[in-house]
Amino acid sequence: MSEPFRPAGEGVRTRLFQIIFESDTPLAKGFDIVLIAVILVSVLVVMLDSVAAWHAAYGELFYWLEWGFTIVFTIELALRIYVLDKPLRYLRSFYGIVDVIAVLPTWLMLLFPGTQTLVIVRLLRVLRIFRVLRLMRFVGESRLLLDALRRSVRQIFLFFFGIFMLVIIFATVMYTIESPEDGFTSIPMSIYWAIVSLTTVGYGDIVPMTSIGKAITVMLMLIGYSIIAVPTGVFSAEVIRSIRADRYSDQACPGCGHDRHEKRARYCLKCGTWLDEETPDPNRASEKG
Amino acid sequence: MSEPFRPAGEGVRTRLFQIIFESDTPLAKGFDIVLIAVILVSVLVVMLDSVAAWHAAYGELFYWLEWGFTIVFTIELALRIYVLDKPLRYLRSFYGIVDVIAVLPTWLMLLFPGTQTLVIVRLLRVLRIFRVLRLMRFVGESRLLLDALRRSVRQIFLFFFGIFMLVIIFATVMYTIESPEDGFTSIPMSIYWAIVSLTTVGYGDIVPMTSIGKAITVMLMLIGYSIIAVPTGVFSAEVIRSIRADRYSDQACPGCGHDRHEKRARYCLKCGTWLDEETPDPNRASEKG
Amino acid sequence: MSEPFRPAGEGVRTRLFQIIFESDTPLAKGFDIVLIAVILVSVLVVMLDSVAAWHAAYGELFYWLEWGFTIVFTIELALRIYVLDKPLRYLRSFYGIVDVIAVLPTWLMLLFPGTQTLVIVRLLRVLRIFRVLRLMRFVGESRLLLDALRRSVRQIFLFFFGIFMLVIIFATVMYTIESPEDGFTSIPMSIYWAIVSLTTVGYGDIVPMTSIGKAITVMLMLIGYSIIAVPTGVFSAEVIRSIRADRYSDQACPGCGHDRHEKRARYCLKCGTWLDEETPDPNRASEKG
Amino acid sequence: MSEPFRPAGEGVRTRLFQIIFESDTPLAKGFDIVLIAVILVSVLVVMLDSVAAWHAAYGELFYWLEWGFTIVFTIELALRIYVLDKPLRYLRSFYGIVDVIAVLPTWLMLLFPGTQTLVIVRLLRVLRIFRVLRLMRFVGESRLLLDALRRSVRQIFLFFFGIFMLVIIFATVMYTIESPEDGFTSIPMSIYWAIVSLTTVGYGDIVPMTSIGKAITVMLMLIGYSIIAVPTGVFSAEVIRSIRADRYSDQACPGCGHDRHEKRARYCLKCGTWLDEETPDPNRASEKG
Repeated sequence: MSEPFRPAGEGVRTRLFQIIFESDTPLAKGFDIVLIAVILVSVLVVMLDSVAAWHAAYGELFYWLEWGFTIVFTIELALRIYVLDKPLRYLRSFYGIVDVIAVLPTWLMLLFPGTQTLVIVRLLRVLRIFRVLRLMRFVGESRLLLDALRRSVRQIFLFFFGIFMLVIIFATVMYTIESPEDGFTSIPMSIYWAIVSLTTVGYGDIVPMTSIGKAITVMLMLIGYSIIAVPTGVFSAEVIRSIRADRYSDQACPGCGHDRHEKRARYCLKCGTWLDEETPDPNRASEKG
Repeated sequence: MSEPFRPAGEGVRTRLFQIIFESDTPLAKGFDIVLIAVILVSVLVVMLDSVAAWHAAYGELFYWLEWGFTIVFTIELALRIYVLDKPLRYLRSFYGIVDVIAVLPTWLMLLFPGTQTLVIVRLLRVLRIFRVLRLMRFVGESRLLLDALRRSVRQIFLFFFGIFMLVIIFATVMYTIESPEDGFTSIPMSIYWAIVSLTTVGYGDIVPMTSIGKAITVMLMLIGYSIIAVPTGVFSAEVIRSIRADRYSDQACPGCGHDRHEKRARYCLKCGTWLDEETPDPNRASEKG
Repeated sequence: MSEPFRPAGEGVRTRLFQIIFESDTPLAKGFDIVLIAVILVSVLVVMLDSVAAWHAAYGELFYWLEWGFTIVFTIELALRIYVLDKPLRYLRSFYGIVDVIAVLPTWLMLLFPGTQTLVIVRLLRVLRIFRVLRLMRFVGESRLLLDALRRSVRQIFLFFFGIFMLVIIFATVMYTIESPEDGFTSIPMSIYWAIVSLTTVGYGDIVPMTSIGKAITVMLMLIGYSIIAVPTGVFSAEVIRSIRADRYSDQACPGCGHDRHEKRARYCLKCGTWLDEETPDPNRASEKG
Repeated sequence: MSEPFRPAGEGVRTRLFQIIFESDTPLAKGFDIVLIAVILVSVLVVMLDSVAAWHAAYGELFYWLEWGFTIVFTIELALRIYVLDKPLRYLRSFYGIVDVIAVLPTWLMLLFPGTQTLVIVRLLRVLRIFRVLRLMRFVGESRLLLDALRRSVRQIFLFFFGIFMLVIIFATVMYTIESPEDGFTSIPMSIYWAIVSLTTVGYGDIVPMTSIGKAITVMLMLIGYSIIAVPTGVFSAEVIRSIRADRYSDQACPGCGHDRHEKRARYCLKCGTWLDEETPDPNRASEKG
């Protein structure tokens, strides 16, 4: 994650910036780890508070814990705004919005008593989980995965487009064949059924009742069962390509500047220049001799 | 998609042809995009109209929208026929048939009042979705996927043949073991159950009741769970082959015989020899001069 | 399929042998295709006859059709025995047993009236489907698949052994936690549930009821969902290896007899002998000069 | 499995050590096989004893069989302790703990009558199955699999982290939308539902009832259906890498620099140069002589 909001000044702000936004120093790493732990615990508290039995037993504790988390996150947010030179740009970025959402519900509760009971408030609080995405900074492997995903995205789009058409056709056919009493009340409902079947989830809340409907379902299930090979195959191929791309060096050719050679290449594949600048070119040597 | 129906003439017809059938000019691209949007909206309207609540609230609106789409598609179809030299060949092609089906149901409704209520009419209207396949023109990646599919088709056929035999045997055994009261009323019904289980869909509308039936089901589920590796493995291997075939030429270096160069290579990466034997090496040329 | 039962004689027997057991001549191919069609139709008849409504309507027709198939298969079996020199070896082979089972039930019915009503008879008749395996002769691709399967079999065995242990542990834990009223009546029943869950079939006939049971189920489902990557990965790798094995020629080295060289190899990797016997070895040539 | 507990002495203890802990001699192999068989049978007995009907019929037999197994395992454990120099280190190792657990429940039953009826006792007995892991010694292939798993573990962790976030967000949204009467009683319960849906298990015990809930479910199911490509792709790539790393050396040919030889290659497949620089080329040697 690049942070384009570095403070120009020095002293306390700069040091705070390094702790909060970077992760090179032990202090900064410690800050990150504590923050992630607090976020996870705060999400856990929201989740447990939604269980009736837990709410009855520990509702008050959860209430005060929530206030504790909110105050911690608010101080953290204030510090983030303080150390940045362009805090508005930060607040409009993805992480900025998530950081604000993390504290908003509890403060709103103070302004508008009664909102506490709204379930939507819980939803907003759970969005805090996105703050953990900062963790990705630590994990270099994500680059390889994202690389492979990016390169397979167009083929995966094609795959979903094909599924989309399959599902519409199968759903309409089943809507025509099966009776509304058995759950096929409309085409959108049939589409729900078709996706439940194609993805092999198979809840069983809507199932075909007629023989012809069962025969069509068999086709849909076999398609869903085997078509999964397509995104898997495409993605496997791209991961293999990504791993292999490690075989390429970034070294630019001193002759033409071409910068994608296999690591074992000795001559530039574009202009034939000898790539290893530290040893002489055996071809030229023999020409001289 | 090749369009073998080009008009021989010039002027308005040729220009209309370029707009409707091709997609190189901005106008032609705009036409394609508008058309796809109209098709998707018209399919959406058919789907929403099948929901009782929506039909009650907006049935009349949907009725007139449907007439609007039909008139637009009819004008478009008329233009297509007008600009082509061999309109009959077009009407017998896949896209021609789909284009006619896209407008037929509504016009039939005018001729035979009362057909509106037939669900089959809805099915015909949804087939319009196939018109969107023209979109594929834009997506070059589909070639790679189709290539890999074509090469794995015989092995996937073998896979389905194996599944077919497995399912028949398991279904007959279960029909022999389980009682008809639990849903195993006939061998075809058992086959439906076997495919629901093998594909890991598992609706749960028919489940084994006896201990021996459960033991056999366990085997079937484990087979279904692991056998999916077969089409996935075959297709992955073919995608990898397609990607690689795209990148490397088989041409051997005239200098050292190294025979695995990227297609874009102009010099051998092993010995620096100029690979294109038909044109002179610019390096050597400049040396001479 | 090798047929080690060739007749030593000539004339009619040999010609019949070629038609029945081989598939090089047009007549032999036609025989194979007709036979496969008859087998498939006969299996279809058994399946349809098990449907109450079809049995009521066409029971008699199916009865006489069954006699027709049995007579055809009996004549075919008699011919097979006639043309072979070692018919007993044939009758003890897999295909021999299947061929006998294909005709046995109907003849037994004649001897013991009343067996017709036994469902087991139907099961025996359906086993005819195995006769279609002779079709595999036509499909060269099966070799590649079987090759890859054979090489991954030990790792797939390891995978199943791991699943087996996982399932036993999870099943026993769930049997301890959940109550028998909810379906977890015994450890074998829990194993059935665990496999239904791990393979992602999910019938829903037995589901966890307690919170702790649901938490454990979540773990089991996530394991089942992701562990499928293991056989898929192993098999994909083996298919890729099989395809690549096509890159190897069978040509033996004239020097040392080593017979597995990459097709592009020019020197034996074992003894350094020049492999292309039609052109001179450039190394030796330069030595002479 | 390395056994760092070898006895220093000789004679009977050393010979017993070789039989019990190693598997090179026929006697040691026989011991292993008999032991594995006894373990499997003892686990089977525990499982069958949990079935009410079997317990009623054979409960007493199972009781005495259990005592038999316990005595056999106790003698075996005593021998293991006897032959080792550092038995305490063994008893604190994974296999030592499992070995103790294998005999503990039955002896405890003697001390505290009535524990027999506790289901937890059964659980402890089933843990004996872990003893079979010693079998892994025989299977060399496990190294390759574990290698590939180890290298993909960080990416699989990333994958599970992504799933974890997806599930929390979807579960909270559905908890907000759906009513508690339909099973979405709390966020943890919604998480259970979300994992049942994402992993495509689909029990059907909790299903969405509202239209908007069904639409969100459709998204979740499609994500679950296609995202499985990620661990599969990563693991496939790693298995392929493991297999390949097994076959090719990185050593470059001293003659032409070709750097991709099979490990068993002794001469360069491009230029015929002797690859092993430490020993003389037998061909050249014979030429000199």
